[in-house]
Amino acid sequence: MLTAATIKHLNQLQQKKYRAEFKEFIVEGVKGVKEAIESDAEIIIIIIDGKLRDEPEFLELVKMASAHEIAFDFCSRADIGEIKTTDTFPGVLAVVSSADIGLDEIARGTIIALDGLKDPGNLGTIIRTADWFGVSRLILGEDTVDPYNPKVVRSTMGSIFRVDIFESVDLAHSLDWLKKKYGYRVIALTMDGAPLPPSIDYRTADKIILLFGSESHGISPKLEKIIDSRYTIRGNSQAESLNVAVAAGITLSRIK
Amino acid sequence: MLTAATIKHLNQLQQKKYRAEFKEFIVEGVKGVKEAIESDAEIIIIIIDGKLRDEPEFLELVKMASAHEIAFDFCSRADIGEIKTTDTFPGVLAVVSSADIGLDEIARGTIIALDGLKDPGNLGTIIRTADWFGVSRLILGEDTVDPYNPKVVRSTMGSIFRVDIFESVDLAHSLDWLKKKYGYRVIALTMDGAPLPPSIDYRTADKIILLFGSESHGISPKLEKIIDSRYTIRGNSQAESLNVAVAAGITLSRIK
Repeated sequence: MLTAATIKHLNQLQQKKYRAEFKEFIVEGVKGVKEAIESDAEIIIIIIDGKLRDEPEFLELVKMASAHEIAFDFCSRADIGEIKTTDTFPGVLAVVSSADIGLDEIARGTIIALDGLKDPGNLGTIIRTADWFGVSRLILGEDTVDPYNPKVVRSTMGSIFRVDIFESVDLAHSLDWLKKKYGYRVIALTMDGAPLPPSIDYRTADKIILLFGSESHGISPKLEKIIDSRYTIRGNSQAESLNVAVAAGITLSRIK
Repeated sequence: MLTAATIKHLNQLQQKKYRAEFKEFIVEGVKGVKEAIESDAEIIIIIIDGKLRDEPEFLELVKMASAHEIAFDFCSRADIGEIKTTDTFPGVLAVVSSADIGLDEIARGTIIALDGLKDPGNLGTIIRTADWFGVSRLILGEDTVDPYNPKVVRSTMGSIFRVDIFESVDLAHSLDWLKKKYGYRVIALTMDGAPLPPSIDYRTADKIILLFGSESHGISPKLEKIIDSRYTIRGNSQAESLNVAVAAGITLSRIK
């Protein structure tokens, strides 16, 4: 049985402004909550459907939470009716602190920069793919969807806990700073670049920022002058473009 | 103003069984409808929001439809309230015939086979990506989401009209048939294969079927014995897997 204050707080966390205010977000489902416990993320509380508490996978979660000294609580059917989630209540959720990452902290190795990405599924898939290829630092531009949006969190499949995300309020300025202070080069995926090479050498990749634009408008004009080189993934049809998460996956798969 | 029968028919086409019965599906939005007109798809009717008929992009659509001798009708606000769509009514939709493709008709060049894919966005993105790379033939296994599901159609971004899709009722049998009759080889993307090579040569690719499994269960055991070789996209992290549409994109980008 949850308090009215807890339910209110959980529902506030469905909104970006409250996630930003409290620096907290929600992860749903057994898999996601387990990944959160196993990561070094700070978990505020885990909330489990009381009806499922004796199911093996939930018993295991409770055991894991206890071992990590993480608070947990059980909720009733009535509580579940009042908790907003992305879909039906998946039996468990955790409230997690969103780490406060500075720009200097992500200045190591390859970085992914995203300008104006709007689709939560695309952002989540890019985070998951970046993690898969061992690229764990991202900068999100000011018009990009909130990475702690529940749909983004869900589609990262747990990778949200293994990447560092810097949320820029001025992407052009942040990228310029990384170039001047650390010697980064900005490589943009555009429609008018040179063919993407089969392999991007790691020593080169060590100081590159891979920049991807929005689903419908590509890269903003204000970023044009900070771009050092442009690559294009060549197609062979009348199709207008590739999905941005697929384009990011192809690019990341070529970093050796 | 639409007839009650038309509205009923449009709403039936939201369901798979009626799409199969009528061999028709719906494409929504200006861009999708334009791609349908420009393709050789058979369009039954185009329905336009009467309030938008004088907007330039809708005037152009009407002109295109007339030039192609395609029937069109205007709908009222009241009609729109009754038409089910994936999201808000996007101003225009078209009812399109789904082509009846035989297995022998897709037996040319590289083929993509999908086993048990459940997510409409993933299927749509794979169709879009395949089209981008000029691979225009797909076989869908019996447990795969309907390619004429409105969410799939929308996420193909028009590519649905440029690919040939064979919907198998027995994927193992269909793949076996292609192997025996045409000499195809089945290359599966799995978690335990050899590293995916940087380039798959076109002459080789000419007779290959690229097989991808479902989001949660991979490739079904019953397909095991028809697989000729296995490739894996190697990662560099604790992440469990890549998104299947990203994996398909990476594989397709390596066909020369």
